[in-house]
Parts: sequence; C-alpha cells; structure tokens
Amino acid sequence: RGRLFLIAGPCVIESEAHVRKMADSIQRIASDLGVPYIFKASYDKANRTSIKSFRGPGLVEGCRILRAVAKDTGLPVLTDVHTPQDCKDASEALGDVEAVLQIPAFLCRQTDLLIAAAETGRAINVKKGQFVAPWDMRHAVEKIRESGNQRVFLTERGASFGYNNLVVDMRSLPVMRGFAPVVFDGTHSVQTPSAGNGVSGGQPEFIPVLARAAVAAGIDGVFLEVHDNPAQAKSDGANALHLEKLKPVLDQLLAVHQAVSASRV
Amino acid sequence: RGRLFLIAGPCVIESEAHVRKMADSIQRIASDLGVPYIFKASYDKANRTSIKSFRGPGLVEGCRILRAVAKDTGLPVLTDVHTPQDCKDASEALGDVEAVLQIPAFLCRQTDLLIAAAETGRAINVKKGQFVAPWDMRHAVEKIRESGNQRVFLTERGASFGYNNLVVDMRSLPVMRGFAPVVFDGTHSVQTPSAGNGVSGGQPEFIPVLARAAVAAGIDGVFLEVHDNPAQAKSDGANALHLEKLKPVLDQLLAVHQAVSASRV
Amino acid sequence: RGRLFLIAGPCVIESEAHVRKMADSIQRIASDLGVPYIFKASYDKANRTSIKSFRGPGLVEGCRILRAVAKDTGLPVLTDVHTPQDCKDASEALGDVEAVLQIPAFLCRQTDLLIAAAETGRAINVKKGQFVAPWDMRHAVEKIRESGNQRVFLTERGASFGYNNLVVDMRSLPVMRGFAPVVFDGTHSVQTPSAGNGVSGGQPEFIPVLARAAVAAGIDGVFLEVHDNPAQAKSDGANALHLEKLKPVLDQLLAVHQAVSASRV
Amino acid sequence: RGRLFLIAGPCVIESEAHVRKMADSIQRIASDLGVPYIFKASYDKANRTSIKSFRGPGLVEGCRILRAVAKDTGLPVLTDVHTPQDCKDASEALGDVEAVLQIPAFLCRQTDLLIAAAETGRAINVKKGQFVAPWDMRHAVEKIRESGNQRVFLTERGASFGYNNLVVDMRSLPVMRGFAPVVFDGTHSVQTPSAGNGVSGGQPEFIPVLARAAVAAGIDGVFLEVHDNPAQAKSDGANALHLEKLKPVLDQLLAVHQAVSASRV
Repeated sequence: RGRLFLIAGPCVIESEAHVRKMADSIQRIASDLGVPYIFKASYDKANRTSIKSFRGPGLVEGCRILRAVAKDTGLPVLTDVHTPQDCKDASEALGDVEAVLQIPAFLCRQTDLLIAAAETGRAINVKKGQFVAPWDMRHAVEKIRESGNQRVFLTERGASFGYNNLVVDMRSLPVMRGFAPVVFDGTHSVQTPSAGNGVSGGQPEFIPVLARAAVAAGIDGVFLEVHDNPAQAKSDGANALHLEKLKPVLDQLLAVHQAVSASRV
Repeated sequence: RGRLFLIAGPCVIESEAHVRKMADSIQRIASDLGVPYIFKASYDKANRTSIKSFRGPGLVEGCRILRAVAKDTGLPVLTDVHTPQDCKDASEALGDVEAVLQIPAFLCRQTDLLIAAAETGRAINVKKGQFVAPWDMRHAVEKIRESGNQRVFLTERGASFGYNNLVVDMRSLPVMRGFAPVVFDGTHSVQTPSAGNGVSGGQPEFIPVLARAAVAAGIDGVFLEVHDNPAQAKSDGANALHLEKLKPVLDQLLAVHQAVSASRV
Repeated sequence: RGRLFLIAGPCVIESEAHVRKMADSIQRIASDLGVPYIFKASYDKANRTSIKSFRGPGLVEGCRILRAVAKDTGLPVLTDVHTPQDCKDASEALGDVEAVLQIPAFLCRQTDLLIAAAETGRAINVKKGQFVAPWDMRHAVEKIRESGNQRVFLTERGASFGYNNLVVDMRSLPVMRGFAPVVFDGTHSVQTPSAGNGVSGGQPEFIPVLARAAVAAGIDGVFLEVHDNPAQAKSDGANALHLEKLKPVLDQLLAVHQAVSASRV
Repeated sequence: RGRLFLIAGPCVIESEAHVRKMADSIQRIASDLGVPYIFKASYDKANRTSIKSFRGPGLVEGCRILRAVAKDTGLPVLTDVHTPQDCKDASEALGDVEAVLQIPAFLCRQTDLLIAAAETGRAINVKKGQFVAPWDMRHAVEKIRESGNQRVFLTERGASFGYNNLVVDMRSLPVMRGFAPVVFDGTHSVQTPSAGNGVSGGQPEFIPVLARAAVAAGIDGVFLEVHDNPAQAKSDGANALHLEKLKPVLDQLLAVHQAVSASRV
C-alpha cells in the first residue's frame, strides 16, 4: 500500500478569487503532511435538485480558471463532465495542465460519456452510482479501458438506502479495488439527498467517522469537498468539511493509513 | 378517473420490419380494447451494462423509422433522449408526427436535459430514478413546467432495494399523481439490474402481478416493453412481456381499472 | 380464487366494552358484504417502542374477553403469542372457541415459538419479518407443518427500507402463496417504525392504496387494524383505519378481487 | 478512549471439550495482546433458518459448561437468552461467575425479555435488530436502565439491505455511543441471511475489512465468532473467523485503535 492521495476543493467554482484561496490553503496543508493533492472544483452543477439553484460559471470560464490555478500552483485539477461534447471541450480548454475528468455518479452508466472521457487520454474518475452494486463497476472500468485509456479510478460515495438517505457499504472498497484504484468521497457520502426543501441536506459530523473507516478498510485516496464557510457555500454546503477541520481530519486518516499499511491480514 | 392509456413496444429498434410488425400487432390489440396507445422504441440504448451490447440504429435512422411508423399507423410514438443536443435533433427528425420524448431514469436529475426536452414543446415522460424519492419528482416536473412546457408525466419503474434488485413502492403512485399524470412501467420494474454476467436479468412472471397492483393503486397509463420473441430480443429481453400475453394482461388491467374507477374512498 | 376473508379489530384490547363494540360494528359490515370475518385484538403489546407505553390487559384477562366475544358473536378470534408458554396458556384460556394464534413479525424465526404454536392444533398466522425475504418464509411454514399442524397462513406487513420506513414488495404475495395462503396487513404496512418520539408513526392515507394493490396482485385475506377513534387509540393509532372508512374500503377491495378473479393470466 | 475489549468464541456450544479448547486458545491470544476478553458461546440457537438445524445442548447443560469454563479460566462468559424465563434460569445456572446476558437482534424490542434480563443484575448486551434505526436503540437502553440495571451495552451487526444481505452503516456506531458502550460484531455483519438452501451464508473475507473500519469509526469492543474449523462448525460456520486468523486480525485492530485514540477530531 502506497501513500494516500487527496482530492479536495469547493463543490463549485464560486469565483476565481475563492478558488485560488481554497487551492492555496489546501495545498499548504497537504504539502505539510506530504500528501499528494489534486484540486477539485466543478464549473457546472448539472443535476441540482431545483432549477433555481446556482450552477457555476460554465465550461469555458470554469476551465479557464482551473487552468490558471493549475499553472500557478502546479497542482493537478479535477472537474466533472456531463456529456460527450463536454469531455472534448473541457479537455481542450484545460490545455496542457494535468487534469482528471470526473464522471458523476448518476452518469456512471452512460456509455458514450465514458468513451468520450476515455478518448481525451486524461485520467478518469468514475463515481459509483447510488444505484450500482460495487461488482458492477467493473463494466465502467472496462468501457474506459477498451476505449484505450488505462488511467481510470473509482470513487465510492454511498448507496441508496431507503429514501433521502445513503449508506456506505465498506465491502465495496475491496471489491472495487479488484478493478482499479479506489477513492472514498467522505463528503457526498454524508449527503441526505433532497432531504431539505428543494436542497440536499447533510451530516458533516460523520465525515471524519466514515473517512477513518474507509481508510481502515483500505483505499488509495480520499475525496473531500472543503469550504472556508460552508454555511454560505453556493452548493452542497450542508455536507462540506470546514477548512479548519481539514488538517486534524487528515492527521487522523494518515495515522490510520499508517497503522493499516504496517500489517496485512 | 379516465381511460387507461398504453405505452408499449420493443425496447430498442431492432429493424424497420420488426418495429412495423410490433406496432401493427400491438395497435390491433389496443384498438380492440379501446385503449389509447403510444408506440415505444429506443433508437439508442445509451447505458447498457457492457460496452459490447447492441445499442440500436442511432438517432437519425431511428427517428426516420419512428416517423414512418407514426405516419403509416397514425400512432403517437415515444423515444428516449440522452443529451440536450439529442432533444433538439430527435425532435426535428421526428418532424410533424405526434411524439413523446422520454427522460431515462438515470438522467432524471440532469437539469439541462429536462430543459432542452421541455423546449421542444413535445410531451415529456420523465422516468423516476431508482435513487429518487417519489416526492422529489416534483422538482423534475417543475424544471419542465418552468421551461414553459406543461405536457409532462412521470413513470414509476422501481427503486433500488439492496444490490441488483428493485422494489416498487406503490405509495409512489398517489404521491407523484399530486404533481402530474403517472404511468407504471411494468417491465423495467421487474428488472434485476446487472444481475447477470454483464447483462440485466428479469422476472417477467411478475409483470402481470405488479401491473395489476399499480392499476389498483391508481395510475393513468401503463408502460410495457413487448416483444414477439423475448429470448432473442437485442435488449432487455429478460424482462420483456411476450406479445402473446399482452391481450390477457390488458384484459385484466382494464377490469381492475374499471373496478377501481367505479368507487372512491 | 375463492372469497376474500377479513381479519380486523383494534390493535390492543382497551376494555371489554370497546372490544365488544368494535367486534359488533365490524361484524355487521362484513356480514352485509358477505365477507368471512375473524376478530383481531391483542392482549399484550410485547414490543412497544417505549417501556412506558400501554400494553393491554394481559393473557388471562385478555383471553377471557376474547372468548366471551367469540361466544357471543360466533366469530373466530385472533391474538398474538410471544413465548412458547404463551401458546399453551392462551390456547387453554381460549377454550372451545375457534381461535387463530398469530406469530408477530419480529418473532417469525423463533423456532420454539412456532413449534409451540403448532402444537396447540389451532390455525397459525405467521407475519413475515421486516428482515425476511419472501422465499425464506417457506422455512416458517415447514417448522409448523413438520410439527404436525397444516393450518398455517402467512401475512405480509412490509419490509425494512432504510430507517424508520417500510416498503411493500408486491412480488412477495405470489411468492409466499407458493407455500401457504397469504394475507395482506394493510395497516402495519403503512407504519413508519419508531419514527415519532418514542412511538411509531403511520400513513393511514395509504391503507386503501396498498390494500387495493395487494388484492389486485392476488391474496387470500386482508388484515386491518380498525378503530372508532384512532387519535385516542392506546396503541398504533397512527396507522389504524377509521371504522367509518371500513365499508368503503372493503367495497373497493371486493370489486378489485372480483375483477381479478374473473380472469387469469 | 480506553482499551478495546474482545467478545469471542464459537457460535454454539458443540461440546465441552471444544468449548474448552476454544476458550483456552483465544484466552492465550488475547492475553498476549493485553486485550480484555469475554468468552462467548450459545447454549441454544433459537432462530435457525431450518427446523432441522443443530441447536445446542440446551440451557441447563450449556450453562453448566459455561460456568465450568469460567471457573477454570477466570474469564467472564456471555450467552444469549430468548425468553424472560430463560433470563432467570440462565442467570441462576451460571451462579457466581461473571456473565453477560445477550439479547439477540431479532428480540431487541421484546420489552419483557429486556426487563427480565435487566432484573438479573448481570451486564446486558443488546444486539441491534436488522430492522432498527440506530437512534431507536436508545429505547432498548432505557428499558434496561429503568428496570434498575445500568450495565448495558449495544452491538452493531448490520442492517437489512434488500433481501438476504446486510449492510453495516458505520454512522450507527457514534450514534449508539451516545447511549451506551458499543461493540461491533464482525462476523454476523458478514452474514448473508438465509442465502443458502435453508442456511445462512457468509463472506468471511470481509471480517477484517469491516472490523478495521468499525474500530477506526470508534467502538469500545469487538465481537467475533471464532472457530478452529469453520467448514465443520455446527452453526454459522459460513461467516466464522478461523482461529488462525484471530491474532493477525487483532494485531491490526489494535494498531488502528491506537492510531485513532492518539488523536481526536
């Protein structure tokens, strides 16, 4: 088992200034801890519960900002794509910076989207659908590999458990590691989908609990949406990790990862 | 409560000849029973479990066939759309025939898709995601209505229940009828998603059971994938209703609908 | 398919006068409709959420009342049993009246309880546990039959669906009818377990919806907890059917049953 | 956070010799690691899937053996109880040795059983029902405390997730620790209930995964059914941990516990 890597950032690009502030702050923490770090932010929230919700700056402006951040910080960046056309457009707009394209959970079975993402040649992160069994994510991996791209990893973010609730089945982590490296998304896993009045709620108090558990179960990376003011975040604030808590949470995760890595069963 | 309508046809357009044969056969049965009928077939199966599965003739050829069938039979037709661009392209290709655009269940939260579908002015059928609570489908309806299109209905096709299994919660039917007319999809509801080796399985023996139950609970229409040779169907054969069983199943559904309509609680 | 039978009454014996009033009222309605009727009331609610809740008059006094009601009305009666000793004691206390012993859902896997109930020679109703797959109820039936008692039937009352919620999987009804006659419990199926502050909530508005669906799916009998004043009921009032609604609900169920019985698929 | 304790032993008492061998073997391992240890074995498996399954030596002989083991090893022992009468009888039969009475998961809402167990004055372990939300276990704790017994703890062993499968929601652990100390049952949590032909299956490969995750999430003790020959075990062999694996698994759990205890979020 190697080093644990981190994917983190705000849910959506709220402004260039905010994105830069978050990238800088998180980079400093990750660097101090020796954690490889990928900056995450979305240019468009394409599946908000309500049509009235904030969506982001769009592909063109969003990719311009992500590219600028990547150039200035040296960080790789990650962003979502929603249609085959998006894959091509976003990849071109991101240019020569290191970037990961992410397939949203609801879209993880859209064959054309997976193929188009694969064909950009960039690394692809496929989030497991809330409605997909872990062993079936092998098909998503195959769709990408058979399109000629071997750089694919999978992210667990909870499974449907009744209505407006998700449960993380920790068995999914070793199952999916049989196919590709696996990331645990500690913030979307504590979402309570659409549980509010037109917005999704969250239980951020469980982020450290579930993230510790996932690291102990065995993963390659951790994904966290981090915000310096979750109460004012323009998307998914209800389940974001406060920036102030990032370092203590990472401290714990690294300690657990170290403990697990030292022995094998 | 008015007349029950029927949406039926093969899962995917296998050939023009097959589509014509199915449309004619089903039209005759529906007409004999006085059931308003919309012909259904997909031009592209965009989310097959495996990348190797048959997908269909594609948008251009598929819409040409659907339009020809509609013109020759006088039937309205229904087909799926998967991206905003698809909505525009399919609607134009279908031309002056009466057609319903259908939003697949996995895509029911994709705001741009719902808006683009709405903007065609055609009637829209939104399938409820396997991961969505019935009361949250109000947001999908609002996304369409606020885009200026009042012709929207919703379809129940089962909710995630553990892995590789769906359950139909009959409470969803009256809940969603509070927002829009509701259709029950009796064939996808008996799917066992990805339960086979790279394909979804099915329990067609439960189609009549669940369809009767849904009609008794109270619905506006019923959706059935029908095939004259399910064992050889190129998609979803495992959960299709055999053409030979369509008439006896509809007989029962109409009897139940009649019984329920005669009284109110 | 034969006539649909009814099991109905208050959740718990609140007083002899109340029990007599309910039995008389429901008997009149059932008799007018030609529905075979079994009076139901519990002498002890053994698994209330809170230790402070009302439990009932106990086995001795409760069975005395049930026996008196049975003698005076000529109705068979049904009551729960919770331990092997209860089976013997209750059966003796009920004496020569026709009585059904009911195994509560949480206890449906307790082998000794099933055997002791079977050994009384009385008809046994086993409620399907919220945690049991329908096909596994064959084991409960076998435990009773192999104890020498062939008079067993099964009752569906919902399956765990996330937390504090149940879903009725209508596929369970034909599955369990492969083993024994099947009853649908329309009132516990709309329970929201422990959803209140130390009490279970309910959604009585869905009783007619689910009961109609179950009859259309195909069942042998229907179970309904009925109260003349649910808001004041001492147990499970939140999901009881108001006595005033019993006749219109039964009217609908009989119409649906008639419609389904007239044809077969 | 204090030391992690261990509850372990064979599912059922197969023979006095076998029980003594298991107790001695596990005691040696626990002692070497400095882990407080409670020996576990059942005298009666009261809810086997099939009536034909092995059940154990019964209360009298079983408690005699447990008492002898406790006296000779100095270990506290734990065993299940199934009726109020069992509590009294088992407690008396166990005599002056330190013993924990365990409430099986299916029975965790049986008020009389909880009260009778509480009234023995012994420590009580209540397993969370597969159908119970974690926050509702507060009622079980209250039933015991209000009966005058403060020595109660709770055990997580998975929640119903569709049919014939359980999922462990790690959020339950901190929720239940708000009420009482919490144990994680790493072997029943990997059961696939009744998934075989009249027997429950299991996924023992996930025992270390889930146990590590639970320790990282935060627990007070771990429960493991351990057998020196799971393939030949007379009950629950499909999900037992092989004795040979106990030491390496405990090594890992202690390392994770240490890592988590050293820091707090």
